[in-house]
Amino acid sequence: MRAVVMGSGSWGTAMAKVLVDAGTPTVLWSRRAELAKAINETHTNPDYLPDVALPEALRASADLAEALDQAELVVCAVPSQSLRGSMETWLPHLSDTATLMSLSKGVETGTLLRMSEVIAQVTGAQPDRVAVLSGPNLAREIAVGQPAATVVACTDEDRAKQIQQACSTRYFRPYTNTDVVGCEIGGAVKNVIALACGMASGVGLGENTLASIITRGLAETIRLGVALGGRPETLAGLAGVGDLVATCSSPLSRNRAFGSRLGEGKTLAQAQEATNGQVAEGVKSCTSVRALAETHGVDMPLTEAVHQVCHEGLTVTEAIYSLLGRRTKPE
Amino acid sequence: MRAVVMGSGSWGTAMAKVLVDAGTPTVLWSRRAELAKAINETHTNPDYLPDVALPEALRASADLAEALDQAELVVCAVPSQSLRGSMETWLPHLSDTATLMSLSKGVETGTLLRMSEVIAQVTGAQPDRVAVLSGPNLAREIAVGQPAATVVACTDEDRAKQIQQACSTRYFRPYTNTDVVGCEIGGAVKNVIALACGMASGVGLGENTLASIITRGLAETIRLGVALGGRPETLAGLAGVGDLVATCSSPLSRNRAFGSRLGEGKTLAQAQEATNGQVAEGVKSCTSVRALAETHGVDMPLTEAVHQVCHEGLTVTEAIYSLLGRRTKPE
Repeated sequence: MRAVVMGSGSWGTAMAKVLVDAGTPTVLWSRRAELAKAINETHTNPDYLPDVALPEALRASADLAEALDQAELVVCAVPSQSLRGSMETWLPHLSDTATLMSLSKGVETGTLLRMSEVIAQVTGAQPDRVAVLSGPNLAREIAVGQPAATVVACTDEDRAKQIQQACSTRYFRPYTNTDVVGCEIGGAVKNVIALACGMASGVGLGENTLASIITRGLAETIRLGVALGGRPETLAGLAGVGDLVATCSSPLSRNRAFGSRLGEGKTLAQAQEATNGQVAEGVKSCTSVRALAETHGVDMPLTEAVHQVCHEGLTVTEAIYSLLGRRTKPE
Repeated sequence: MRAVVMGSGSWGTAMAKVLVDAGTPTVLWSRRAELAKAINETHTNPDYLPDVALPEALRASADLAEALDQAELVVCAVPSQSLRGSMETWLPHLSDTATLMSLSKGVETGTLLRMSEVIAQVTGAQPDRVAVLSGPNLAREIAVGQPAATVVACTDEDRAKQIQQACSTRYFRPYTNTDVVGCEIGGAVKNVIALACGMASGVGLGENTLASIITRGLAETIRLGVALGGRPETLAGLAGVGDLVATCSSPLSRNRAFGSRLGEGKTLAQAQEATNGQVAEGVKSCTSVRALAETHGVDMPLTEAVHQVCHEGLTVTEAIYSLLGRRTKPE
C-alpha cells in the first residue's frame, strides 16, 4: 500500500514517520515548496519538529499531482476548518478507490459535519472508504518513538485492518474499531475540554478540579456521541478517555496551553499573539460542537461555558463559578 | 448531626475540616494522644498537613469513648488493611444507629471484602447503614479549600442525602449515588493503576503512555465493578474516571510517586525507605484486587503486571514490554 500524508504540520509529519517505519512507502505533501525542500534536504521538519530525525526513505513534495500519484492511502492532516477547501484542491488528483483517512479533529463550522462526512461529501466517496485515526497521540512523543496506542476506525472492518497493518510499528499500536462517529466525537470535543482544563489551571486550580472537569467533559462527550449514533464503549476507550486525558494532562497540548493563557487573564487576541497568531482548535470547535449539541438536544454545560468565554465575553472566573457552583443532587 | 472522623492522617484531617466548615460538630480521633494534643493546641496537624490552618471548632481526641460519644456519623479514615482491627477496638463505643462511612480504599487481603463489607461484618450493621465517600479528592488540595467534587454512596438514598448535607461546603460538593460497589471498586483499583502510571513515568515514558494506561486501567476497573454488581456509569463518573485521573496525574499522589521510584530502578524496600517506611496502598491492594478478579473470572492484565512487579520479581521494563507489546486486534 502506497501512502501520502497531506499536510506537514507536527501530527502529519509524525504519522508519515510512523508509516515509513511500518514499511509503507510514503510521501509527505506540504503546501509550501520551501518546507518540502527542507524536509528532503535535512530529513527534519524545521518548522514543526525541528529536533526529530526523519527517516531518509520519507520523501516530501509540494506537487499535488506527484504526491497523490498512485496513493492508495490518503491521510488528511490539515486543520479541521480548512479540510473542505484543501480536499477540493486535491480532488482532481485523487483515485476513485483510495482509502481516505482523517487525522483532523473537529466539527465543520456552518455545516456541522464531522471530518469523515466532509471528506465523503467533497469526494463523493462511500462512507466505507473513509477512515479516521484517533487516540492519545501527542505528536512529539510519537515522533521520538515513545510507545503509543491509537484507534483506526472505519465502517469497513477489512479496510481498517489494512490501515492497521500499514501503520503498525514497535512503538505505535493501532486498534481497529467500526465506530467512526464515536471516534470523531471524542476527538472533536476533547479540544474544547482541554481548553476548559487550561482555563482552570491558569487561574490556579489543582488536580481535583482538572479531574472533575475531565470527568464532566467525558460525560457530555458520551451524551453527544450516543445521540449521534456512536457507542459509549468507544468513548470509554483510547479515542475517548485516552485522547481526552492525554490532551488535558499535558501542559504541552496546544489547547490546554491556550486555555491556560485565558485563565491567566489574557484576552483571546493576546493568547493568539502568544501562539504566533494561531488560535487553538478548540476555540473554533466549541462553536460547532455547541451547535451540533443544540441540534440534537444534548446538554453540554462545559462546552457552553468555553464558548461563552471564547466568544461572548464571559470571564474565566465567572465560567468556573457557574460550572463548579454549589449543586446537591444525585451524580 | 454530630460527626467523628476516626483517623487523623491527611485525608481524615481534611475531611474533618470539611465537616466543620459545613457546620457539622466534629471530633477528630487520633490513635496517638500527642497528635490529638498538638492538633488541639496548634490548630494544625503537624504530622500530616503541617501548613494548613484547621478550624478552631475542630476538636481532636485520643479517647475512644469520648470521641465516639453521641456520634451519629462515624467516618472511618484508617488504612484499608487495618480497618478491621481498628473497627474491633471502636465497636464497644459505637451506637447501633450511627451512619458508618468509609474513606478507606482497598480490598481486604484474605477475605477479599470491600471496606463497607468489613464495616458491616465487624459491626453487624445492615448494609444500608454503611456509606462510602470517593472521588477526585487529593487531601492537600481540599484542605486548602480548592474546589472539589465527590460521591457519597449508600444503598439508602436518604442517608446519602443526610451525609451530603453534613459535608457540603462552598469548596466541597458531594453528589449522591446508591452504587456502593461501583464506588468502592473504583477507589480500590485506582491505586493499583496509579502505581502502573508511576512505573511508566519512572522509566521515562510520556503522556501518551500514561493516557493509555489510564484507559486500559479504567477498562479493567469497569469489568471488575460490573462483575461484582456495580454500574458502569458510576465508574465513568467522579468515583471512577475522576478519582483515577486525579490519582494518576498528580506527581504528589503517594501511589504514583511510589511506582515512579520502582520505575527508576529502586527495589520495593528502597522505595519504602524513601517514603518513611510506608508502603503505598496499591502495593497491598494489587494482591487482593487480583485475587478478587480471579474469583470472578475477570481479566485484569494491568493489575496482574503490577502484582508481578511488586511481589514476584518482574522488572518494570519487562512489565511494560508485556503490557505494551505488539497486538493488532480490535479495540
